[in-house]
Amino acid sequence: MQEFAALANSLADKAGEIVKKYYRASLDIERKENDSPVTKADKEIEQALREMINKTRPDDGILGEEYGFQGSKSGLTWVIDPIDGTESFMIGRPTFGTLIALCDDITPKLGIIDQAIIKERWIGIKGEQTTLNGQEIKTRACKSIYDAIIGSTTPYMFSKLTDYGRAYEIFEKTGNHIVWGGDCYMYGLLSSGHLDVAFEEDLKPHDFAALIPIVKGAGGHISDWRGDELTLNSVGKVIAVGDPELWPEIDRIIRKSPY
Amino acid sequence: MQEFAALANSLADKAGEIVKKYYRASLDIERKENDSPVTKADKEIEQALREMINKTRPDDGILGEEYGFQGSKSGLTWVIDPIDGTESFMIGRPTFGTLIALCDDITPKLGIIDQAIIKERWIGIKGEQTTLNGQEIKTRACKSIYDAIIGSTTPYMFSKLTDYGRAYEIFEKTGNHIVWGGDCYMYGLLSSGHLDVAFEEDLKPHDFAALIPIVKGAGGHISDWRGDELTLNSVGKVIAVGDPELWPEIDRIIRKSPY
Repeated sequence: MQEFAALANSLADKAGEIVKKYYRASLDIERKENDSPVTKADKEIEQALREMINKTRPDDGILGEEYGFQGSKSGLTWVIDPIDGTESFMIGRPTFGTLIALCDDITPKLGIIDQAIIKERWIGIKGEQTTLNGQEIKTRACKSIYDAIIGSTTPYMFSKLTDYGRAYEIFEKTGNHIVWGGDCYMYGLLSSGHLDVAFEEDLKPHDFAALIPIVKGAGGHISDWRGDELTLNSVGKVIAVGDPELWPEIDRIIRKSPY
Repeated sequence: MQEFAALANSLADKAGEIVKKYYRASLDIERKENDSPVTKADKEIEQALREMINKTRPDDGILGEEYGFQGSKSGLTWVIDPIDGTESFMIGRPTFGTLIALCDDITPKLGIIDQAIIKERWIGIKGEQTTLNGQEIKTRACKSIYDAIIGSTTPYMFSKLTDYGRAYEIFEKTGNHIVWGGDCYMYGLLSSGHLDVAFEEDLKPHDFAALIPIVKGAGGHISDWRGDELTLNSVGKVIAVGDPELWPEIDRIIRKSPY
């Protein structure tokens, strides 16, 4: 695993170099069909990282946000989101991140969240304690939903009224103690013990794969909304809970929701 | 004005020292009646800043988030929000800020947004160009609402359906190109030319006073939703627009809103 961690760190270093070149610079913004902004930085990072992986481990698969899927011969697949939180990146707010995951078949075993501007890197490896900049971290205790601080990225990510209904019931239970604008960075903060719940929808595998070993290795629960393990085949309904003992209470709220 | 700027900078320095002591540390969180979290850091900063002002300029008034109003004999009043974006502070996200304004009667003439963790300080002084860490900055051009990126803190800040209706019409015009979780930091980003519109409700004078000289001194428009000047007497419906030529279009949307 150390060999993979070394490569993952090199990939994150390279991504950070490119991020710094474009951060708060003028960018020609394209719009994808789904209207999310794509930046030159996004593409340049993914191209550079694909080249590095293909050179070092040509038999590994690659799944990236920008350039799709390259099949795996080794059984291992790298999953890359060059810039998660593109909106934050575009407005010059340093709470976006580069996400890198390594999956064994469809299951993430290693994940990195890298925030290159304020130099914060979370690394999660299956079976090891998660670290932030090399220091071991863990999630915090939270015994009741009423005490929880919950994070999400935008209310608009809940695509159907039924899904927003479920989200809303959870938000309401916390006294609407909710922080918006989360992106990947909030899963790092949850893993570091500063946030209790992250609740999101409409995430793609490149958005959540890296988060799984990070949250789990810090002692937290992360799954889909039904409590099932997240894999590259999951639909993007993601919940992370810092204190796993809080999960059954949230599970009950979701199951009892009339929506 | 240089004397005032020097004092304002000293106040921000002091606030930053206290911020660093409490940032990402465990805090005993109290809840105010309105359920917003108050931290020890909040109170300690405001007390320290009040002492500094009273020692240096005992005749000036002080209006703070935590300890209310101290009347002015000089005609000048300092307005302090020790930590704007308390929720971000609580989850360890460095997009909160200390806000310091100096008002002549009820009109802000000087404002500071200080982000002590990533060391970013915006200073606006009436009649001068706004600076970020000493470098002059300006807002960017944006000729149409369809090209705008808009920021706000939380959809829950729009207290009445009619107000959310107005907000929603503007958000929709931008193709819901909206970034949440803004707080004071987004007005800094708008002044630096990275964001086009900030649209918020339910702000208190200590939340918006400092923003006014910063946005104006960077070339932007900032007012209440009707276009009237913001003063300490304004209700907290705040709109900032980086390119003042975009304001009439937004003004029309608000006026024509059926809500």
